[in-house]
Amino acid sequence: MKNNPFKGIIAYPITPFDKDEQVDIVLYKKLLERLIVAGSHAVAPLGSTGVMPYLTDQEKEAITEATIDQVKGRVPVLVGVSNLTTERTVYHAKFAEKAGANAVMIIPMSYWKLTDDEIVQHYDAVAKQISIPIMAYNNPATGGVDMSPALLKRLLEIPNVTMIKESTGDVQRMHYLRRKLGEDAGFYNGSNPLALAAFAAGANGWCTAAPNLIPKLNLDLYNAIDKNDLQEAQKVFYKQLNLLKFIVNKGLPRAIKAGLELQGIEGGFLRSPLKPLTESEVAEFKLILAELE
Amino acid sequence: MKNNPFKGIIAYPITPFDKDEQVDIVLYKKLLERLIVAGSHAVAPLGSTGVMPYLTDQEKEAITEATIDQVKGRVPVLVGVSNLTTERTVYHAKFAEKAGANAVMIIPMSYWKLTDDEIVQHYDAVAKQISIPIMAYNNPATGGVDMSPALLKRLLEIPNVTMIKESTGDVQRMHYLRRKLGEDAGFYNGSNPLALAAFAAGANGWCTAAPNLIPKLNLDLYNAIDKNDLQEAQKVFYKQLNLLKFIVNKGLPRAIKAGLELQGIEGGFLRSPLKPLTESEVAEFKLILAELE
Amino acid sequence: MKNNPFKGIIAYPITPFDKDEQVDIVLYKKLLERLIVAGSHAVAPLGSTGVMPYLTDQEKEAITEATIDQVKGRVPVLVGVSNLTTERTVYHAKFAEKAGANAVMIIPMSYWKLTDDEIVQHYDAVAKQISIPIMAYNNPATGGVDMSPALLKRLLEIPNVTMIKESTGDVQRMHYLRRKLGEDAGFYNGSNPLALAAFAAGANGWCTAAPNLIPKLNLDLYNAIDKNDLQEAQKVFYKQLNLLKFIVNKGLPRAIKAGLELQGIEGGFLRSPLKPLTESEVAEFKLILAELE
Amino acid sequence: MKNNPFKGIIAYPITPFDKDEQVDIVLYKKLLERLIVAGSHAVAPLGSTGVMPYLTDQEKEAITEATIDQVKGRVPVLVGVSNLTTERTVYHAKFAEKAGANAVMIIPMSYWKLTDDEIVQHYDAVAKQISIPIMAYNNPATGGVDMSPALLKRLLEIPNVTMIKESTGDVQRMHYLRRKLGEDAGFYNGSNPLALAAFAAGANGWCTAAPNLIPKLNLDLYNAIDKNDLQEAQKVFYKQLNLLKFIVNKGLPRAIKAGLELQGIEGGFLRSPLKPLTESEVAEFKLILAELE
Repeated sequence: MKNNPFKGIIAYPITPFDKDEQVDIVLYKKLLERLIVAGSHAVAPLGSTGVMPYLTDQEKEAITEATIDQVKGRVPVLVGVSNLTTERTVYHAKFAEKAGANAVMIIPMSYWKLTDDEIVQHYDAVAKQISIPIMAYNNPATGGVDMSPALLKRLLEIPNVTMIKESTGDVQRMHYLRRKLGEDAGFYNGSNPLALAAFAAGANGWCTAAPNLIPKLNLDLYNAIDKNDLQEAQKVFYKQLNLLKFIVNKGLPRAIKAGLELQGIEGGFLRSPLKPLTESEVAEFKLILAELE
Repeated sequence: MKNNPFKGIIAYPITPFDKDEQVDIVLYKKLLERLIVAGSHAVAPLGSTGVMPYLTDQEKEAITEATIDQVKGRVPVLVGVSNLTTERTVYHAKFAEKAGANAVMIIPMSYWKLTDDEIVQHYDAVAKQISIPIMAYNNPATGGVDMSPALLKRLLEIPNVTMIKESTGDVQRMHYLRRKLGEDAGFYNGSNPLALAAFAAGANGWCTAAPNLIPKLNLDLYNAIDKNDLQEAQKVFYKQLNLLKFIVNKGLPRAIKAGLELQGIEGGFLRSPLKPLTESEVAEFKLILAELE
Repeated sequence: MKNNPFKGIIAYPITPFDKDEQVDIVLYKKLLERLIVAGSHAVAPLGSTGVMPYLTDQEKEAITEATIDQVKGRVPVLVGVSNLTTERTVYHAKFAEKAGANAVMIIPMSYWKLTDDEIVQHYDAVAKQISIPIMAYNNPATGGVDMSPALLKRLLEIPNVTMIKESTGDVQRMHYLRRKLGEDAGFYNGSNPLALAAFAAGANGWCTAAPNLIPKLNLDLYNAIDKNDLQEAQKVFYKQLNLLKFIVNKGLPRAIKAGLELQGIEGGFLRSPLKPLTESEVAEFKLILAELE
Repeated sequence: MKNNPFKGIIAYPITPFDKDEQVDIVLYKKLLERLIVAGSHAVAPLGSTGVMPYLTDQEKEAITEATIDQVKGRVPVLVGVSNLTTERTVYHAKFAEKAGANAVMIIPMSYWKLTDDEIVQHYDAVAKQISIPIMAYNNPATGGVDMSPALLKRLLEIPNVTMIKESTGDVQRMHYLRRKLGEDAGFYNGSNPLALAAFAAGANGWCTAAPNLIPKLNLDLYNAIDKNDLQEAQKVFYKQLNLLKFIVNKGLPRAIKAGLELQGIEGGFLRSPLKPLTESEVAEFKLILAELE
């Protein structure tokens, strides 16, 4: 197995803003600490949940440093460093390594649909400049490009690309990854409603924002799988499924903020154009959370 | 739980033809017998695998009678009776019941896309004329209409519609069925490559043509699930996945015929426009079968 | 140019039923006569509009003969002879030729998705048995298979396949047909809402059920194009667009029957599972027809 | 009609880079000048063709100022100011207005899929801060969100949102815009292969990068439409269609650069991850250009 520091529940913090829509580092650290003490196996700042694309370079650097500072080595840290240009991706990857990240996550963000060769060169350019492992992330819904299994295989030939995160929501894609990549690469699921199917298919971990709200249920699912108890896993999964679908459908940053507030925890403000859930959405969410108690 | 006679592996026989493209009942019975002695939990003649839509009314009746005659009550029999018109669907459903079928399967075949009301009235018209249970089958790829979860729920309000077979290949649809239908209705998977995911999601059974070729592997998967042994189920599933994908991609009647012949078993002829696999497809299939030994 | 007897407005009659859901030949002839006297350039019985797949072999023969008998050579006749099996397609094609049809239309109906080779052999088997021209019809929404431009080109190598009817609703497909097929083959549009775009792209004719309701507007569009008057064509097209979209969205047999009745013309009954438009749909249709007066 | 300064051919310049991947303003001005002297009715810097999302704020400002400076009022200027955050979009819109732009174009770029309300508030926030007109741009392929016709209608209620650019490639969407928006709003086509269909449907203009390579053919198409000569428009359109499809399929910045060089004109460098066309792509392009001579 290639170098691959992650397994289990990889928790994604939100990036909270103050009322002037500026990043609120103090609140960020509090929310991050909750994820760690809840038992998450790893944390992943500057993901989609952390609205990374809406942040300036300076803000991304501040979040990276705040994370390393707060985690203090208790769990591995996976930092999102994706950018439209190769030059900026290299810059942020180097910053993350220097700051102390255990690995970086890169989605080939694309405005112009990139060719396979352009994507390979993009990853390769970054990989050459850092020594920590890279998780290649496939999510056509946010990144705009769907990396084929064949392309993912090419990426894994780059020595420090050691992990794949798959969020297409296609179970057959996961089968392919497990079959073709074998034990040489870690395979992570990023689609919340497919958490059970992905673990059944052999995923090493689950990248999720849900631990902001229901860490115990998320960990229970992983533990049931780890104990080879499918019946328990099924039971625990169906218990949390409504919440998983809700937070995905409403957009993770908006939904997590609302869920935190429904649980009495400060969630901060959003950065425009993102706006809070509507009243009726909050009411619906309240019912879903009530079912879990 | 409503009346629901099926669980486990529901095996689909092909309908073989002679060299003049006429149905070969003698060969059909032989192939059916193989499915029964291999341990299939039920058999389902006149499905897609059995090229039902390509048969005349008389041929369908002959297959139905031959099945009941051969099975002799050893396993439950699920007969496909779908037809474009309501009148012909009623006719075949009544014939199947009288012949001794345990249940009928109905997909809302549609040339003109049917409205939800038209589909409900179609099932209702059939249900009123028979007393055996009905399995409603959702498969947009062959039937031309995708029944929403809400529609499936309406169908289950018809007393003898007691089972749903789902073949969209969408795991989330299966989650919905298991959640919303609860224990009131049987839920069956018809998508071969999703066999593991469907069982993990709680499917009661797997409707499949694969037992024509690899009955032991199919049963091993079900048994592992039944013993709550996910690790074994995963191992057995990945062993058979290539074959499952191949037979689906090539079309079940064509692929099963080719697979039987590769195993030294007579598979008969196809009815035009369906043609045998090409030589290179057969060669590919041979490699896939060889991997299993 | 290959032998190609059609241009302009090719009108599709419905197949009306009596209250016992039996084909009503007397009413059929009346409705067909309306299409002819209105000035349609050709008529096409046993199309999707004529619910051909819902008819028995005997009913199809009766409609074919009634059409030839009623038309009496005033306009060319294009008879639909598609069937799931090659044997039945050949049968109906031969019947149509013998009865006096000018051409037959064939869509590769498919339950099992046919390979390109299977489709070519299917058309070839029919073409060898008749001497009148064949229109190959591409409509994935009803036929279940989407014939690629490359496949259509292969079909046109069969000597009496001389025309393509395209109903995918994709303007770029039409561009391809016009470019690649050139003047060697007739290219017909079967997508009502794309009537203007298709004529602008160079279609030879428009296959449509709309002349059952608005023959003058349909002919006006063709005539404006024929006079190279795009501004007039645009004006006439936008006048009828709402009606075209409505009849497509509601399903042609159901919508045409309702529209005839709103115009005070007997439309007969439908065959189950098809049901009449709902009251609110009829009310909506009434408003659309009123706009046209 | 609302204030709407554009019609005809709206030409999109590329943003060329030097060998260090820095913006080359001198070359940019030369390429822009070519578009103006060729007779384009307007120019649109910082569009997708101009790789706007890959530029820094400073680079965008430099391009905006260089454009105004070079154009010197000869044709109207439409500046792209889209950004993921509302704050940055407002910033660039104000900058463009101050610099002398005639209008700004805004696509609701989205990483997180925006709700309709979020999109309306985003446009409204910008509209309130500027007095020049706004063209709302719908292009799910690059922007990540597909604005429904109903949403576009809501946007047009904002006083200075006066134009819609539509690039979904769906002719029926264009019909809707022309019908529902009537003469109150300008409607522009951004899909090159649909240029003829869009003009036939009544588009006011065509937003295109093609004038970098074939300005005369682009203008000839518009002029034929303007003279109500559909036959001439069809002829001219089919002449340029292969090129239009090629540049869209390969990505406009990469394809335009290659095309310029094939015509002996300096096209500059691309910014990574974008890479030049491969040799075989260039060879294919050469053949397409040769056909036009």
